[in-house]
Amino acid sequence: MYRVLESIKKANDIKKIPAHEYRELAREIRACLINTVSKTGGHLASNLGVVELTMALHLCMNFPEDKLIWDVGHQSYVHKILTGRLNDFSTLRQYEGLSGFPMMSENENDAFDTGHASTSISVALGYAFARQLTGENNKVCAVIGDGAMSGGMAFEALNNAAALKSNMVIVLNDNEMSISKNVGGMSKYLTKLRTASQYQNFKNSVEDVLKKMPLIGENVVDKVKRSKSSLKQLVIPGMFFEEMGITYIGPVDGHNVTEMVSAFNDAMKLNEPVLVHVKTVKGKGYRLAEDNPSFFHGVDPFNKRTGELKKKNEPGVCSYTSVFGESLCRLAEKNDRIAAVCAAMPLGTGLNDFARLYPARFFDVGIAEEHAVTFAGALSAGGMIPVVAIYSTFLQRAYDQILHDVCVSRQHVVFAVDRGGLVGSDGRTHQGIYDLSYLSSIPELTVMCPKNKFELDSMLDFAVNEYDGPVAIRYPRGRAYEGLADYNADIEYGKSEIIHKGSRVLILALGSMTETGEEVYNRLLEEGITSTLVNMRFAKPFDKDIIDSSIDDHDIIVTMEENSVTGGVSERIAAYIQWTGNEKKTCIPVSLPDMFIEHGNVNQLKDKYAINTDSIIDKIRRAL
Amino acid sequence: MYRVLESIKKANDIKKIPAHEYRELAREIRACLINTVSKTGGHLASNLGVVELTMALHLCMNFPEDKLIWDVGHQSYVHKILTGRLNDFSTLRQYEGLSGFPMMSENENDAFDTGHASTSISVALGYAFARQLTGENNKVCAVIGDGAMSGGMAFEALNNAAALKSNMVIVLNDNEMSISKNVGGMSKYLTKLRTASQYQNFKNSVEDVLKKMPLIGENVVDKVKRSKSSLKQLVIPGMFFEEMGITYIGPVDGHNVTEMVSAFNDAMKLNEPVLVHVKTVKGKGYRLAEDNPSFFHGVDPFNKRTGELKKKNEPGVCSYTSVFGESLCRLAEKNDRIAAVCAAMPLGTGLNDFARLYPARFFDVGIAEEHAVTFAGALSAGGMIPVVAIYSTFLQRAYDQILHDVCVSRQHVVFAVDRGGLVGSDGRTHQGIYDLSYLSSIPELTVMCPKNKFELDSMLDFAVNEYDGPVAIRYPRGRAYEGLADYNADIEYGKSEIIHKGSRVLILALGSMTETGEEVYNRLLEEGITSTLVNMRFAKPFDKDIIDSSIDDHDIIVTMEENSVTGGVSERIAAYIQWTGNEKKTCIPVSLPDMFIEHGNVNQLKDKYAINTDSIIDKIRRAL
Repeated sequence: MYRVLESIKKANDIKKIPAHEYRELAREIRACLINTVSKTGGHLASNLGVVELTMALHLCMNFPEDKLIWDVGHQSYVHKILTGRLNDFSTLRQYEGLSGFPMMSENENDAFDTGHASTSISVALGYAFARQLTGENNKVCAVIGDGAMSGGMAFEALNNAAALKSNMVIVLNDNEMSISKNVGGMSKYLTKLRTASQYQNFKNSVEDVLKKMPLIGENVVDKVKRSKSSLKQLVIPGMFFEEMGITYIGPVDGHNVTEMVSAFNDAMKLNEPVLVHVKTVKGKGYRLAEDNPSFFHGVDPFNKRTGELKKKNEPGVCSYTSVFGESLCRLAEKNDRIAAVCAAMPLGTGLNDFARLYPARFFDVGIAEEHAVTFAGALSAGGMIPVVAIYSTFLQRAYDQILHDVCVSRQHVVFAVDRGGLVGSDGRTHQGIYDLSYLSSIPELTVMCPKNKFELDSMLDFAVNEYDGPVAIRYPRGRAYEGLADYNADIEYGKSEIIHKGSRVLILALGSMTETGEEVYNRLLEEGITSTLVNMRFAKPFDKDIIDSSIDDHDIIVTMEENSVTGGVSERIAAYIQWTGNEKKTCIPVSLPDMFIEHGNVNQLKDKYAINTDSIIDKIRRAL
Repeated sequence: MYRVLESIKKANDIKKIPAHEYRELAREIRACLINTVSKTGGHLASNLGVVELTMALHLCMNFPEDKLIWDVGHQSYVHKILTGRLNDFSTLRQYEGLSGFPMMSENENDAFDTGHASTSISVALGYAFARQLTGENNKVCAVIGDGAMSGGMAFEALNNAAALKSNMVIVLNDNEMSISKNVGGMSKYLTKLRTASQYQNFKNSVEDVLKKMPLIGENVVDKVKRSKSSLKQLVIPGMFFEEMGITYIGPVDGHNVTEMVSAFNDAMKLNEPVLVHVKTVKGKGYRLAEDNPSFFHGVDPFNKRTGELKKKNEPGVCSYTSVFGESLCRLAEKNDRIAAVCAAMPLGTGLNDFARLYPARFFDVGIAEEHAVTFAGALSAGGMIPVVAIYSTFLQRAYDQILHDVCVSRQHVVFAVDRGGLVGSDGRTHQGIYDLSYLSSIPELTVMCPKNKFELDSMLDFAVNEYDGPVAIRYPRGRAYEGLADYNADIEYGKSEIIHKGSRVLILALGSMTETGEEVYNRLLEEGITSTLVNMRFAKPFDKDIIDSSIDDHDIIVTMEENSVTGGVSERIAAYIQWTGNEKKTCIPVSLPDMFIEHGNVNQLKDKYAINTDSIIDKIRRAL
């Protein structure tokens, strides 16, 4: 099926392909990407954009000796296909199949595990210095997108790179996009560079600029001052990087293999850090993706011909993300102090409508979670009520800022923590199962979890309009639960909601686990066991009163959360029960194990890690 | 005593001082700083450096309407003195006295609470956007040091600043230092800017450069290529910032009030973000501090005349920091795979000797904790054994990197977490009392705490040479405990050490609290109560066997840690006891409350928050 591609059985085999077949190889790789991702779902547009770039790097490097680090890593599919994983590629992102990200334990040619943005230059620099110290002689190359370049740690690494006296190549994969359109000064700067002449024409471009300069004379300075931009044009392309001590080469056409091979080979000869600026088109070669790269950034299974999703949303079924987005728009209509902040993911966090309706109050700060949070802290100090929408896993990066810039001074910042809990096919680096732990460790921070879509709406209203202080609302990826709609007691600070009253088993369920709790309740009822089901609502402070008042009437206490057991709510409640003078009761923690959890369907993972209804019923049966 | 200074009773009073008195005012402020800090201890050199800068800003701004944000904030003493806090200044950093950092709840003229580096531009941008949205018309200014400018989030904020269409001023306080000498490409770049002409001479400088340019002709390009630097000189000063969309003004003499007032007024008129580059001398006006600014960065009480510390170290008494530094040097002598990484604090983290002895294996990456950790992850992947030395409070900033770039792939990185526990006079923003919580929430990470200086040495040896995986060793600020020297069982993974065997009370003490545990043990013994004292050693994984095997023989279990109760070891052990089938026992958590803890002497704070021997004895007595 893939004539040329199938002849590449393992890493480095690409070097045997004659140059006149490159175009066909690229075509076959794209076909393979589209065929697979249309079935498995995954990151399509970014991989289509780096087909030739990956080929060129593989032509210039030797694996596994040389180290190629993919920033974020969702664009590593082509690298996987070219390193002996073509046959397994259909298992992409499936349970026990290939990871959607580079993974050292999956393949020796994956140089580092990535998943979050902006880490690759730090990794490359670490490899380059380790090489010097261990006396190795390998090549080290990081590939980073222009979006990830806005993340602070990329800058920290660039700043540190000047210390390196040997070669390291940073490929800036510039497609003018992160997941959505890029923002910020850096992005504007890169746009200017993109439109500059190619680096092969360096001589001519300097000459052209000099020719346009006024001759040296008395009026020169005035003229220059009046037209500052003409002086700016005199800058060597890439001065931003050059000033940091990084040699700049570019821009290079990211869909021309020969041109890139030549640039990369040039770059790899220099005894210093070099940045090669490569221009690519996100979604390249698949018209639907080129036209709508945001949609095809990370996509569920789709029809190749039409681009339509295979599994359409059932009418009326919506995600927590969209519930959040709609609620916030409603609240913002009535309260003009509400602002929204996101980090390069307006679509993913459900803020697209807000951005359209309230552009002045909408802030997309780029891939910059740290800045996003501190910025929000100051928006609050300045009289606004900022709602910061960031995925659980990415909010990890702002732990210090939440603590130091929001909670120390008790700013009224609302965190909309999307993708809290298991996220499924993105796997280990993306699971949102540590947030209840790291957020709870921060003083002054309130943490709420809604049981269903209606409660997310109420909690947001409560957080914005009734509460005054730092507060996080954490909700899972995907479909918003619509059950238990009749249970809608007003949100009261720190208080839980009793769904069912019974005896024997006290089920304390948090957020998404309330749905499971309801199933457990019904199953127990079928078996003649009555239980009390409590929707905890607050992870911090949790409702001590409900425990104190209920514990004597029950034999078993089950705590349920979609979070790692360490530092989670189960642990905190169990410790509370131990510390108070209550009679000894059996406590059953239903939490995730303290480990990194692999990719796979969320239900598969819930089964495997025993937080599904059957496992819980088993545990309760054994305890009774 | 301070003729001019004392006439400034409150904010804005400085505007009544005639210009010819500025020099005398600056002299008096310096005298006040030296007099006070020589008694209280504190940050001296950075405050001496910003005397005129603060005066100039106060002359250009109106408080509290205008917002002045001090990055890090330890250089805000002059601001405090000029905003009605002169009379209280002698209470600086003392329990219930003035904070050593800006604090909104202390004074309305402190615009934001700071303590950690690189946050001020984000804060200023938040204030500036809030001003637009709320219809205010105040001035917003951030003061950031060149050291803090290497922190990634400063870059994230600069990148975002281009979106602002109104005024915001960033004063770059460039003294060529962070706590130690600055490092990195940015620093080199700023040095180049510093040596450029003053901004008033902008015209001339451009003219000069142009005059040196070869005339336009055929050989131009070749000449330019041969001498790339001459072309670089043509760059407008501050092009790095200009490329990001920030207008650059400077450099300005930071000890000339008039010149700065003129530059700040110019800058504040522009409808855009402006960076004013101010050159200052750290320690200015106090010869001892100018000569040794690192020593006088943060200093204990000293003799004003000689600069000597009032409280000399007793012979033989040493800090955990120096024990760590010496141990690491010894280990590095025998194992050339060991590398050390710090974030702008070689002296503070005890790595000065390492840096001198093993310069090739020593990495000071600047104020860049995120990069430091990911960089170390890759050093490990490349075959080295990196030891990352960062204070507990600053390591908060690398939470995501520890998880994502070290623990996901189980890199062998050793974290030397200094200042774990109460730190004393730096107060709320610097307490190291959350690390056991946030570190324990990360899968695969082992967390150890030594009971005394000998055990720190053994643990470091164990972590580097025997263990293979991510591991943190956490130890407190200040004097290393030398007691219990005879208890030196080999470190065994996950195992505790029994110090005394007894009955009734089981004391599970972690790290620094083992010293307190020994006191409690002896006091109980005096009262005829025998107890078992266990040195836990491992916070994660904690020693379950010792609990399972001892619990039946004791009535009371006391867990002791110098950490917030939420997510700490007390909570985890109590939950474990609750979950296992053990008989109900009284568990007493000796941990810090879940709150931000103010500044003051560590012993005062331990008394106040009831983690001292007396309080613990009281609690045990009541339980018995």
